Order: sequence, then structure tokens, then C-alpha cells
Amino acid sequence: MRKILIIGMGAGNPDYMTVQAIDALNKVDVFFIPDKGTEKAALRKLRTDICARFIKTKAHRFVEMPVPKRAEDFFDYKSNVADWHAEIETNYARLLREALGENECAGFLVWGDPAIYDSTLRIIEKIRTRDEIEFDYQVIPGISAVQALAARHRVPLNRIGESIHITTGRKLAGGYPADADSVVVMLDGEQAFQKLAGEFEIYWGAYVGTDEEVLVSGQLPDVANEIAAIRAERRKRNGWIMDSYLIRRPEK
Amino acid sequence: MRKILIIGMGAGNPDYMTVQAIDALNKVDVFFIPDKGTEKAALRKLRTDICARFIKTKAHRFVEMPVPKRAEDFFDYKSNVADWHAEIETNYARLLREALGENECAGFLVWGDPAIYDSTLRIIEKIRTRDEIEFDYQVIPGISAVQALAARHRVPLNRIGESIHITTGRKLAGGYPADADSVVVMLDGEQAFQKLAGEFEIYWGAYVGTDEEVLVSGQLPDVANEIAAIRAERRKRNGWIMDSYLIRRPEK
Repeated sequence: MRKILIIGMGAGNPDYMTVQAIDALNKVDVFFIPDKGTEKAALRKLRTDICARFIKTKAHRFVEMPVPKRAEDFFDYKSNVADWHAEIETNYARLLREALGENECAGFLVWGDPAIYDSTLRIIEKIRTRDEIEFDYQVIPGISAVQALAARHRVPLNRIGESIHITTGRKLAGGYPADADSVVVMLDGEQAFQKLAGEFEIYWGAYVGTDEEVLVSGQLPDVANEIAAIRAERRKRNGWIMDSYLIRRPEK
Repeated sequence: MRKILIIGMGAGNPDYMTVQAIDALNKVDVFFIPDKGTEKAALRKLRTDICARFIKTKAHRFVEMPVPKRAEDFFDYKSNVADWHAEIETNYARLLREALGENECAGFLVWGDPAIYDSTLRIIEKIRTRDEIEFDYQVIPGISAVQALAARHRVPLNRIGESIHITTGRKLAGGYPADADSVVVMLDGEQAFQKLAGEFEIYWGAYVGTDEEVLVSGQLPDVANEIAAIRAERRKRNGWIMDSYLIRRPEK
């Protein structure tokens, strides 16, 4: 039977790889590498670097997976994403049939943790329920960007007895979530923190865990402009940015 | 200068150890091992097993840290925890002065991830700000119980574009959090899910990642009694339990 390993490779630092993830790498015959264009070239390089460093003996091959572009004009965000995922799903199903032998093992290397803001797991499960191709699959957790951020700032994500709310910039733009104490924001292209009213402390980081890492923390009004300026400058220089932040109201 | 490494050892499976955590272990002269009594003997064993397996050459020693009991009678949960932490802090500060040489490196092995529902980081930072003993410290992230749970259930923690809310049983008992989609519940001795009204899907796990692992998932009314029964039985048999769950309303 075909086997698929969805492997969390950690976010940024190759040393975030776990023993379990390294063992998994060494079982894979075919790595499916998504090709999302130049913006993600650095991430692609991280994937192949990890394979080069951690695969000891196992012969393996790489198959490029062209990833369709998400439609830029849409009315509803979720159906836009759903349509996009359906297209990816069709591509993945075809590639699994064509490029993976019957007793072979496929590997998907996922940035961070496969269960946190990544769709590989959801897409693979959908392909399995289609019943067109039989396989078993396993998920290997990895250090997420949320954890890398907290570790590098040396800050606990939660306050004593309080919750941790992980959300997107898109949602934070609609207001600070009710019933939330500490909030971690991912995928925030709009820097939604700039629109928050009231007092907040923020721990921001970009390229966390890599040589390019930049960290800023402080009271929001004091550091908001600095974060925005650094973000714009680095994004321009590198052609892409991956950042996240922890934000919360000051302790009472 | 003294150095302290706060090392996330992952939750349950020793294979969750990262390359970074293994490197860190191999720099430590003194491991401070909290002694919380028989209930946590299994966790103590996991710590020493991890050291035995991953430390290759470095000579090291273990220092037992007696952990005071938290007062059982209290009016306010947070001040109860704060008092308890103050006592732990005094113990840790004394031990660091007495048991750690001036150029030595101390290691704290933390279950899961040091930034998620663990107080070591908070306590070490408080000792640092007291200025009685000079040291530098670093935090090494680890695979948390939240991630182990999701990986073993092969379920994404978030739904498309939606948030992940991590909270305690104590808080969930006060009602399902507003503005939350997927909720992960830790430290739930009361099985607060049983008090929720309405439809929910649940992914529950205990001893996740270990040989004792047990997983149950389904629609809440169908599996609530099964979870409660398994939980009670395992807790009795082992003398302790560590469980968590992901819960959310069915997809619209």
C-alpha cells in the first residue's frame, strides 16, 4: 500500500527538526515539492537543504508540484480558498497516481506544523475519501512559527490561567477577539495591529529562527511604526516576508 | 557567566525531541529535576530517559528540586498560583546559587513547549530581574501536547481562515468562548466538555505519543460518556492522567 508522510519541518531553523521527522525523511521515496513561484524560493531551498542534511542513505527523488494561483477577484474569502484547494487537490491526486509507485512512500515537507494554518493535511484527507487511490498517511508535528516566536522572545504565550488565541490578520482587522487574553496573529499582510484601539504589548518577529531574524517588542504605540518600517524594508529587500506577533493588553 | 537552558522536550514521545534540544542537552552541566511526588514519577522517568538516550559525552549531574504543594484552600485562583510560584521562585533561586558553578550551564527539561502552560520561563525571568544572581538564559521550543493531539488524530487545529483558541478546563466551564471557532482544552480535571450545550465535534486524547496513548473522536453526545469512562479508568489504573482535546461546532 502507498504511504504518505506529512512532515512538519519546523519554522525557520533546520535545528527545529525532530527525531521523528528525521526518521520520516529517511523513509520517503518521493518528495512532493510545491512550486509557488519566486516568492517562496527561499522556502523551497529550506526544504531541499533539510533533505540534504538529514537524509543519510535512502535513495529518493523530488517531484515538483505546480501550485495554481488563488483567484484574485472574489466575493467570499472561504469559497475562494475552497475553490483553490479543490484545484490543488486535483493536481495532488493526479501526481500521487502518476509519480508514486504502489509500495512507495511519499513525503510532504510542511513549514512549521501541519496542523496549524496549513492545508496539506486537509487536502490529503479529501483525496483519501475520494477512494480513487488507496494509501495510508501519518502526520508528524513540527515546531510552529508561534512557538519559534515565543522562544526567541523568551515570553510565555499564555498568562497564568489564561487562554491563547491564534488568529489571522484578516480576523484581527475586525476587532480584538472577545474572551481572548493573549492573541497570536499569523498571516497578517495588513498589519492589523495598527488599527487596534487601547493599550497593548506586542512581541513581533519576522524570519524567526533564520539568519535574517528580526525581533521587536514593547508597548504598541512605541513600536508600531518601527515594526511597520522594518517590515516594509525587509519585504522589499527579500521579495517576501514571513512574520507573526503576540499581542495582549497590559497585565492588570 | 552562568547559563540556563529551558528545553522543551516535547509531549510524550521522546522522538519529539528536536535537534536543537538535543544539542542543548549536550551543553548542560546540571539538570534541575522538579520532584512533584509520585503522581509525576512517570514524567520524571521520561526526563531521565531522554538524558540517557540523547546525551553522548557531556558529564552532567542531576539536582532534585522539591516542588512545594499549592495551597488547596483559596479564594482567588490567580493569587493562589502567584503565591505558589513565589515559593517555587525562592527555591529555584537558592538552588541556582548553591548547585550551579559560576561558569556552568543549567538545564530545565520542560514537558511539551516552555511557552505553553508552563511556568519555568516566567519563574526564571523573575529570578533574573531580582539581580541576586547573574545569568543568561535561552528557550528551546518543543512539540506541545496540542500538536501531538492534532498529529495523532490527523486533524488540522484550525478550519480555513478561522482561529484556534487554547484554554483551560477551568475557563471552558464558564462557557464556550465567544469569537472562538476551534478550541483546544488543556488541564481539564473536570471534563468541562460535558457541560456544553449544543452540537460539537471532539477529538480527545490521553497519554498522547506514549505507549499508553488512547484517542477518541466523534460527535460530542455520542462519545462524551465513553471519554469520561476511559478517563476515570486510566486515571485510577495509572495514578495520573494527562489529556487534552480539540472541540468545535460542526461545520456550517
